[in-house]
Amino acid sequence: MSYDSYPAPADVEAVGCVGIGTIGGGWAAYFLSRGYRVEAWDPSPDAEPKLRRLIEAAWPALTELGLADGASPDNVRVHAELPGAVRNVQFVQESAPEVLDLKRSLLADIDAAADPTIVVGSSTSGYSMTEMSGDAASPGRLVVGHPFNPPYLIPLVEVVGGDRTDPEAVRWAADWYDHIGKSVIAMDREVPGFIANRLQEALWREALHMIDSGEATVDQIDRAITDGPGLRWPVQGPMLTFHLAGGEGGMAHMLDHFGPSLKSPWTRLDAPELTSELRDAVVAGCDDEAGDRSVADLIAERDAAIIAIQRVISGIREAA
Amino acid sequence: MSYDSYPAPADVEAVGCVGIGTIGGGWAAYFLSRGYRVEAWDPSPDAEPKLRRLIEAAWPALTELGLADGASPDNVRVHAELPGAVRNVQFVQESAPEVLDLKRSLLADIDAAADPTIVVGSSTSGYSMTEMSGDAASPGRLVVGHPFNPPYLIPLVEVVGGDRTDPEAVRWAADWYDHIGKSVIAMDREVPGFIANRLQEALWREALHMIDSGEATVDQIDRAITDGPGLRWPVQGPMLTFHLAGGEGGMAHMLDHFGPSLKSPWTRLDAPELTSELRDAVVAGCDDEAGDRSVADLIAERDAAIIAIQRVISGIREAA
Repeated sequence: MSYDSYPAPADVEAVGCVGIGTIGGGWAAYFLSRGYRVEAWDPSPDAEPKLRRLIEAAWPALTELGLADGASPDNVRVHAELPGAVRNVQFVQESAPEVLDLKRSLLADIDAAADPTIVVGSSTSGYSMTEMSGDAASPGRLVVGHPFNPPYLIPLVEVVGGDRTDPEAVRWAADWYDHIGKSVIAMDREVPGFIANRLQEALWREALHMIDSGEATVDQIDRAITDGPGLRWPVQGPMLTFHLAGGEGGMAHMLDHFGPSLKSPWTRLDAPELTSELRDAVVAGCDDEAGDRSVADLIAERDAAIIAIQRVISGIREAA
Repeated sequence: MSYDSYPAPADVEAVGCVGIGTIGGGWAAYFLSRGYRVEAWDPSPDAEPKLRRLIEAAWPALTELGLADGASPDNVRVHAELPGAVRNVQFVQESAPEVLDLKRSLLADIDAAADPTIVVGSSTSGYSMTEMSGDAASPGRLVVGHPFNPPYLIPLVEVVGGDRTDPEAVRWAADWYDHIGKSVIAMDREVPGFIANRLQEALWREALHMIDSGEATVDQIDRAITDGPGLRWPVQGPMLTFHLAGGEGGMAHMLDHFGPSLKSPWTRLDAPELTSELRDAVVAGCDDEAGDRSVADLIAERDAAIIAIQRVISGIREAA
């Protein structure tokens, strides 16, 4: 389909939420805070009271972040049957449990009941849309829109289509999530675990190995992150962090001088060969990201953030 | 040696800093802010003006964090020869470049010149003290005290001895860093990369693989962390994060239900076998860490931190 045959993101008024547990309910709270009407469905018998409690618990935070005009926590209806949640909406977010057969049949059901011109996003954290869309009659509008917990606070959404997804639907989903204030990463190919979960999973698996072999305790793993590199990561990701580790020479200096450490047994994961192509791609990417910020600017930004973050967290702990 | 033959941490008045580049200079700034006299040495001809600039740049942040009584940025002397920096001090922090032969010979020289009753900490991020202490006459007092950049802001210090290190010297170093306000992880065995760098390195290597294979760009890697899981990590490390991902059932539910995903190709690093021993150790560790905080308490703490962290960072970016 052409991009324009989907409703314009700015014209969306209602969103369907299929599956309203922790993730789907978090999405519902977020959509409500952005001023949308939410039509929801979940087969669980206590889904509605749970959803109301989740929205109530999230609302003070969402209010603090700033509500859209007309936003109301009451602007949600929980339907007895699936079709009620996917008709008369301009987008559907599916957040069912991570069970492939369930996702396949549910996406086929959503596809069968929803207006054919709207895009359907799946919150899956692990399956590819190629795997999940196999039973759907019109898989072209089925897209992964992978959030992070809690979806009403963490900005990141990873967007990627499957083999049969319409590239315009992927583009539409990226625009839509961006329109509602999310930080969108649109991937041009399916990679198991997408991007953030691959990175997170590498760290998690190394941590499990260390605990398994008695090299570290649970508490040491967590403190190694919260009191160490974790303090830098909300402000500068792993690449820009190492750009600064290179001093004035930035990532180029870092890779040229510390590249051999990639052969060190510092983790169970072997590194790729540091070819000149890889080296140049990493350096160029960091230079692009730094933009017109000098190394001194980046250091000032990092230091101010580290101080403020520590202060924020100790304030929250003292208040508790 | 017995613990008491080292100077009591509370009695330390002066610290020697050998190597005063980015890391050693950052340590010097931190020691000064805690009210210590710093005696420094570095073979580089422009070491002193660089150190003065680094201290000057760091001082506003250190002032904001709170200075100890009598702390002054001027309380530092840069010596022409190594011995001047390691005599009449009660602790020495070595922060030379990461070159094994250099570290070995420098630690031997420090050991030969310093008062025999004091502990010497090395900032090495990669070598074991067993490798580095081979040329020293009294390796018993040589300990790794690995900081994170910038050492004047990031609390974490990893402490570990080598084969010939006196366990009481390791204990002393842990107490000393704790005394000056650091968050100390004392390891009971040498592991290449210690703990935090192993975790950070696993993430970094997976990122390099993804860039190398065209699966992600530098900007996508960084944004996947800064706008995603990185927002949770300063407040709750990777283990406690997944404790919350298990809902009310915590880490036990998480491992029992999502354990099979450890076999998924979500990163290039294979996970360990999830034995019942590993499962129980991880669950117990998370329960210990959570202490008397319920899942609801931990969620409230996480959410408050995520909101405040995002606000802090956007404030800093707008001000710049």
